[in-house]
Amino acid sequence: MKKAEIGLIGLAVMGENLVMNMESKGFSVAVYNRSIDKVESFVNGRGKGKAITGCKSLTELVNILERPRKIMLMIRAGEAVDQMLEQLVPLLEAGDIVIDGGNSYFKDTVRREQELKAKGLFYIGTGVSGGEDGALNGPCLMPGGSREAWNAVEPVFTAVSAKVDGDTPCCAWIGESGAGHFVKMVHNGIEYGDMQLICEAYQLMRDGLGLDNEEIYEIFARWNETELDSYLMEISRDIVNFRNEQGEVVLEKILDVAGQKGTGKWTIEASLEESVPLTLISEAVFARCLAAMKQERVRAAKAYEKEYGRISEKKEEFVEAVRKGLYASKIVSYAQGYALMRGAAEHYGWELDYGNIALIWRGGCIIRSTFLGRIKEAYDRDPKLPNLILDPYFKEAVSDCLTSWRRVVSGAVVSGIPLPAMSAALSWFDSYTSERLPANLLQAQRDYFGAHTYERVDCPRGEVFHTNWTGHSGTTSAGTYSI
Amino acid sequence: MKKAEIGLIGLAVMGENLVMNMESKGFSVAVYNRSIDKVESFVNGRGKGKAITGCKSLTELVNILERPRKIMLMIRAGEAVDQMLEQLVPLLEAGDIVIDGGNSYFKDTVRREQELKAKGLFYIGTGVSGGEDGALNGPCLMPGGSREAWNAVEPVFTAVSAKVDGDTPCCAWIGESGAGHFVKMVHNGIEYGDMQLICEAYQLMRDGLGLDNEEIYEIFARWNETELDSYLMEISRDIVNFRNEQGEVVLEKILDVAGQKGTGKWTIEASLEESVPLTLISEAVFARCLAAMKQERVRAAKAYEKEYGRISEKKEEFVEAVRKGLYASKIVSYAQGYALMRGAAEHYGWELDYGNIALIWRGGCIIRSTFLGRIKEAYDRDPKLPNLILDPYFKEAVSDCLTSWRRVVSGAVVSGIPLPAMSAALSWFDSYTSERLPANLLQAQRDYFGAHTYERVDCPRGEVFHTNWTGHSGTTSAGTYSI
Repeated sequence: MKKAEIGLIGLAVMGENLVMNMESKGFSVAVYNRSIDKVESFVNGRGKGKAITGCKSLTELVNILERPRKIMLMIRAGEAVDQMLEQLVPLLEAGDIVIDGGNSYFKDTVRREQELKAKGLFYIGTGVSGGEDGALNGPCLMPGGSREAWNAVEPVFTAVSAKVDGDTPCCAWIGESGAGHFVKMVHNGIEYGDMQLICEAYQLMRDGLGLDNEEIYEIFARWNETELDSYLMEISRDIVNFRNEQGEVVLEKILDVAGQKGTGKWTIEASLEESVPLTLISEAVFARCLAAMKQERVRAAKAYEKEYGRISEKKEEFVEAVRKGLYASKIVSYAQGYALMRGAAEHYGWELDYGNIALIWRGGCIIRSTFLGRIKEAYDRDPKLPNLILDPYFKEAVSDCLTSWRRVVSGAVVSGIPLPAMSAALSWFDSYTSERLPANLLQAQRDYFGAHTYERVDCPRGEVFHTNWTGHSGTTSAGTYSI
Repeated sequence: MKKAEIGLIGLAVMGENLVMNMESKGFSVAVYNRSIDKVESFVNGRGKGKAITGCKSLTELVNILERPRKIMLMIRAGEAVDQMLEQLVPLLEAGDIVIDGGNSYFKDTVRREQELKAKGLFYIGTGVSGGEDGALNGPCLMPGGSREAWNAVEPVFTAVSAKVDGDTPCCAWIGESGAGHFVKMVHNGIEYGDMQLICEAYQLMRDGLGLDNEEIYEIFARWNETELDSYLMEISRDIVNFRNEQGEVVLEKILDVAGQKGTGKWTIEASLEESVPLTLISEAVFARCLAAMKQERVRAAKAYEKEYGRISEKKEEFVEAVRKGLYASKIVSYAQGYALMRGAAEHYGWELDYGNIALIWRGGCIIRSTFLGRIKEAYDRDPKLPNLILDPYFKEAVSDCLTSWRRVVSGAVVSGIPLPAMSAALSWFDSYTSERLPANLLQAQRDYFGAHTYERVDCPRGEVFHTNWTGHSGTTSAGTYSI
C-alpha cells in the first residue's frame, strides 16, 4: 500500500476542509477521527475518489505515513490535545513531527514541545486562521515550535496557505516554542477588536442616526473602498442587508447575545503579564460578556427608561466622521496588539518579524485587509518601531482622523450610545501621547498609605523617596507589601 | 516558660505592626523571621518590654505556642508561602492552624487548604487591608478557608481589627476555601479603581481647568464632605498641597510612573473567567502600565505635539460636574466588583454576604468610606440584587449624576485629556442599560465566517440557526472551532 505524505486527526469542519485543501495541492493524506463513523462518512463522501485514506485507529494512521511522519491535530484545544498526545506519542519514532493546528494556549504549546523533544519528537504549534472557508481555500498559517522540523513541513504549509500579490504565501515561520500560537492568539484578539469596532459603527448609525439597513449597506460598501477595505468590512456589508426567502432582513432576527472564551481572554491575560495596555481588545471581550447578559440589560433598560438621543449632526458629515473614528481606533487596536507581541518577544526571546506577520495576515485570515500592507511598510521602515502610531504614515493617518474621532466619541457619550472600544482607543491615545499623566498623585497615595516610595522628576530613575505624610507613620518603607 | 497564644512569621512593616497590634490587645505573640537579625532588632526595639517572644527557629516557634497552634504568615505571596509551609508543616500537629495574611492568589489558597487538610491541619487565607497604618491600629480582615478553625482564631481577629460605629469589628468570616483571598483581591481591584478615578479628576482639574494645588486642595476637602467622603479622598486632599521643608509642593516633584502586578491583574483574570465585565478596574490597571511607559510617552507627546485643550466651561459648575462624574463612576466600579464576587460565589459555591462585606470594608482598609454603608443598605434591601445600579438608592444617584457625567467625559474627549476609567464606566453604563446592543451583527459575522450559528429574537433561547450567507459555504455548522 502506498504511504501517505501527511496525517490529519480531527474531522470537524476545519479538519475536513484542510484535508480537502492538502489533497487538492497534490498531497496524499491519511485521516483519523475519534468517532470512527466520521472517518467513514468523510472518505465515502467529500473525500471519495481522492488521495485520502481513512484510518480506523491511530496505529493504522501511524503505519500508513511516510517517515518522518507528519501528523496534524485539528482537535479541540486543551485537554483533548494532551489526551491525544498520550495515545499518539508512544506509537511514534524519533524524528516524527506532530503539528497542533488548534487554537491552543501558547504556554501549553511551550510545554508540549518540551515534552516531545525529550522523546526525540518534533512539535509544531501553528495558528490556522480563516475559518472553514480559509481551511478549504487557503488559510493563513502561523507555525512555531521545533525549528528543525520546519523544512519537512514547509512544502505542505506553503502549498495550502492563502496567497497574496499573486504568489506570496500567507505562511511564515514565526519563532521558537509557543511563538506561533502566541501570534495566532494576538490575531484572534485583534479579530475581536475589529469585529467590535464595526459593530459600534453599525450601532451608532442605526441608533444614533436612525439609518436603515439599506443605507448602512451603501455606507459599508463605500467604506470598503477606503483604508477600511477588509474581509470583515466586506462581510458586514453583505450581512447588513441580507434577506431570507421571505424578503426579511436576517440581521433583524438575530439575537444580540454573544459569548467570549479562549483566545480573547488569553490575549488580555498575556497583556497583563507583559504590562502592555490592551484596552481596546479588553473592551471588545467585555462587550461580548455584556451582550451575553441580555436579561439583566432588559431589566436595566427598563429601570433607567433608556432611550438613545438622536445625533443631530448632518448625516453625510457624521457618517464620514464615524468612518474616521473607526479607522483611528483600528490603528490603535493594531498598535496595541503589536506592542503586546513586542513585549512577549522580549520576554520569551522570540525574534518576531513584525512586517512579515502583517504580510501573512493579509490573506487567508479573518482580519485580512489592505491596511496590513501599511503595517508591513511601517516595520520595513523601522523594524524596531516601539509603537505603530509613531510611524510617520500612521501618525499622519491618526492626526487626520483625530478631530472626527473626538466628535464621534463625544457625540455618542452625549447620546448614550455605548462605544466601548472606540472610546477606549481614544483614551489610550490621549494617555500614550501625554508626557505628564496624573500618576504622580497615584504614587503619592501609595507612599502615603503603604510607604511604597516614589521617584522624583528631578532625580535619576531608580532613586526612591519616601515622605512622612502624616508625621506619625515613621520612615520605614515597605518591602514585602505592594498592590 | 509561658506559652504564647499566637505566632507570626514575617517581620516586614505589616508583620511587625500586626504583632504590635495583637500584643496591645492582650495577646502574647511569638515571632519568627527568615533573617534572624530582624527578630533580634524587633524584640529589642519596638517589641521591648512587651509580651512578644523572639524565636530563632521554626522549631522554637512551634514549641512555644499553645495548642492548637495558631501561626500567621505575613510573608511575600507566591512561592515563599509554599516554601515556608514545606518547612513548617512537618513541625505541626493535627488541629493546628496556619493563617496566611499575605496577598495570596485565591487559587493557591484553595490548593493549600486542601493540602493541609489532608494532614489534619487547618488553613485560613485571610485578606488583611489597611497598609502599615491599618496593621498597627486596626486592619480590615477578610478570613476564609477552614471553617472549623474560625472559632479558635476569631477572638484575636476581632480584637485587632478596625471598628466602625463604635464597636462593630471590620472582620467577618467570608467563606470556604479561597473566598477570603478572593474578596481581598476584589477589594484591591476596587482600590485600583478608586485611586485611578481620583487621579483622573485631579488631572482634569489640573490640565483641563488649570487649577493650582491650593484650589484642588479646597475642592477635595469639600468633596470629602459629600458622598465621596472616603479615606482615599482624604489623603488625596492632604497630598495635593503637602509641602516639604523648603515650602515646595511635594506632589509636583513626584514622577508620574507606576507599576501594576499581583492583585489588579488577578482581578481582571477572574473577571474574564466569570465573564463579568470589569472594565473600570481593567482601565485602572492598564493606566498604570501606561504610566510606566514614560519614555515612549515623551516621544509620542513630541511626535503628536500634544497639548491639552482648556475646558472653557464655568469653573465652579464644571468642578461640580467632575464630582458627579467621579461619583457615578465609583458606583459603577463597585457595581462591577460586586458583580464579579457574585459570579465567583456562584462558580465556587461560596455563600457570600455582600452587605457584610461592604460593612467590614467600612473601616481599616484603604477603600473605607461612608459610601460602603449605602452598599450595605442596598444588599439589606435585596440580598440577591443582580447589580448595584439596579438598587433604588443607587439608581437615583446615578440618574442624578448622568448629565454631568456625560458632560465631563465628552468635555475631556474634546480637550484630549484621558479619562480612561470614567469613560469606561460610562460605556459600561450605556451598554448595561441597553436592551439592544449591536451583537446581532457580531453573531452574524461569526456565523458568516465560522458557521458558529446564532439565536433568534423570535425563537426560544438555545435554539440555534445558521444562514448560508455566501451561497457556497454549505450548511455544516462548526462544532470544534470557535473564537
